[in-house]
Amino acid sequence: MKTISEHKCFGGVQGYYAHASKEIGLEMKFAVYQPPQIASGRVPILYYLAGLTCTEETFAIKAGAQRVAAELGLILVAPDTSPRGANVPGEADSWDFGVGAGFYVDATQVPWSKHYRMYSYVTRELPELITTKFPADTARQGMFGHSMGGHGALVCALRNPGQYRSLSAFAPIAAPMRCPWGKKAFKGYLGEDQARWRDYDASELVKRAPFPGTILVDQGLADKFLADQLYPEVFEAACRESGQKLTIRRQEGYDHGYFFISTFMEDHLRHHAGQLRM
Amino acid sequence: MKTISEHKCFGGVQGYYAHASKEIGLEMKFAVYQPPQIASGRVPILYYLAGLTCTEETFAIKAGAQRVAAELGLILVAPDTSPRGANVPGEADSWDFGVGAGFYVDATQVPWSKHYRMYSYVTRELPELITTKFPADTARQGMFGHSMGGHGALVCALRNPGQYRSLSAFAPIAAPMRCPWGKKAFKGYLGEDQARWRDYDASELVKRAPFPGTILVDQGLADKFLADQLYPEVFEAACRESGQKLTIRRQEGYDHGYFFISTFMEDHLRHHAGQLRM
Repeated sequence: MKTISEHKCFGGVQGYYAHASKEIGLEMKFAVYQPPQIASGRVPILYYLAGLTCTEETFAIKAGAQRVAAELGLILVAPDTSPRGANVPGEADSWDFGVGAGFYVDATQVPWSKHYRMYSYVTRELPELITTKFPADTARQGMFGHSMGGHGALVCALRNPGQYRSLSAFAPIAAPMRCPWGKKAFKGYLGEDQARWRDYDASELVKRAPFPGTILVDQGLADKFLADQLYPEVFEAACRESGQKLTIRRQEGYDHGYFFISTFMEDHLRHHAGQLRM
Repeated sequence: MKTISEHKCFGGVQGYYAHASKEIGLEMKFAVYQPPQIASGRVPILYYLAGLTCTEETFAIKAGAQRVAAELGLILVAPDTSPRGANVPGEADSWDFGVGAGFYVDATQVPWSKHYRMYSYVTRELPELITTKFPADTARQGMFGHSMGGHGALVCALRNPGQYRSLSAFAPIAAPMRCPWGKKAFKGYLGEDQARWRDYDASELVKRAPFPGTILVDQGLADKFLADQLYPEVFEAACRESGQKLTIRRQEGYDHGYFFISTFMEDHLRHHAGQLRM
């Protein structure tokens, strides 16, 4: 692991790092915020997965999470949203598939399957690296994310409830099998067989087994993607069906961007701190 | 004035706007945050001037100021850092002069003098526009900024103490006549006569007449530009000489970027609220 840069922030350190990823087969970058509490021991980790077109820098720059993380004593980790430099033909042709749009799946379709393994990267390789290199309490890990990353957070935590003890999302793609973004990504990365898609659809996964804690979701009602891409009502119904505890808040006037996310960031961090029994 | 976009943020509205500027002779963009308190009347305005290479978007995205502005009831205004599209030969050749580097002066040298009139734009035309188009209390205006914009804020407020009632800066270029950035800019925009430079040098201006309120300055001690470009000690000595009330805080470990700024943003906003008797 190499350090790209580190910056003091709210008494802690916001850093950018890179490493040679075995899962991805390429260099991957990620951001970590270490709160001042690391001076006195290991602290819980909260992973944030970002949305389409974002990088490992987006959350650190735009979400305004460091202030409350410094108060609560949370390590914040934000990976990139796809491999970079895989050189798959056409990977940069669209903003919602390929580069910047890994969808947090392990691709099974050639040629994507070689490098586009973001699910295993995010749930296995990156946590191992983080807990080796940073003073992280592995027994207390949570996950959240936005849009494509909200989808990713729901999927990763629902499939690994022993690993993640807290979960929330901002405007997640909550039923990707039904929406244009999800269909395009799943067809491209996973192929035509929709049975495979279900392993990456939060509204399907929650029916198999609910997450042990309450899931917090914020959704802006002025979000231009709400009607066609996000389907929170499908996830809400699936949660009801499976007995999943869910707090879904529909926020009047808020759109899909980071001005929405930053407004409710503190609530999410305190939700995670509560679930992680801090 | 036209609206580029508006986004709900902490109960208020973060907007980006453009207008045909008479001072600049080109379209200029700026950002405005309106807090929720505008629903019940006019509120104070705080102007933020950004640093080299920044645009009207930088402060809104990176500084994390909206949360406290929403609490205190402050309008935040952030202009761009130079004309755009002036097409002066060589204006985009360096990052510290020309585009993104207007230095908040009225250029007197041809060909810069036609469009590079950021001092008059920021202190005259923009405030008139803001108070016409937004529910702003013109009797309560403050100014702050970062680096080149910290220089700009100090200069604008020291020259117009009746107009601005509160003043602060993050890592300002505090004695531009002595540093490479300032010498290059002043020579290019104002010519060889250093007598003219003094009208744009905070450490000279404060000796002519102190600002009525206390000036707050934060300076990171891990700032790579501190030794060669910023000279806070020169400004500090000038303030002492002229009886200027100054609170200068040297922050261990902090660098020149927005992770530093966001850490101390709340302190600055509360400083302004206090000076504006909110």
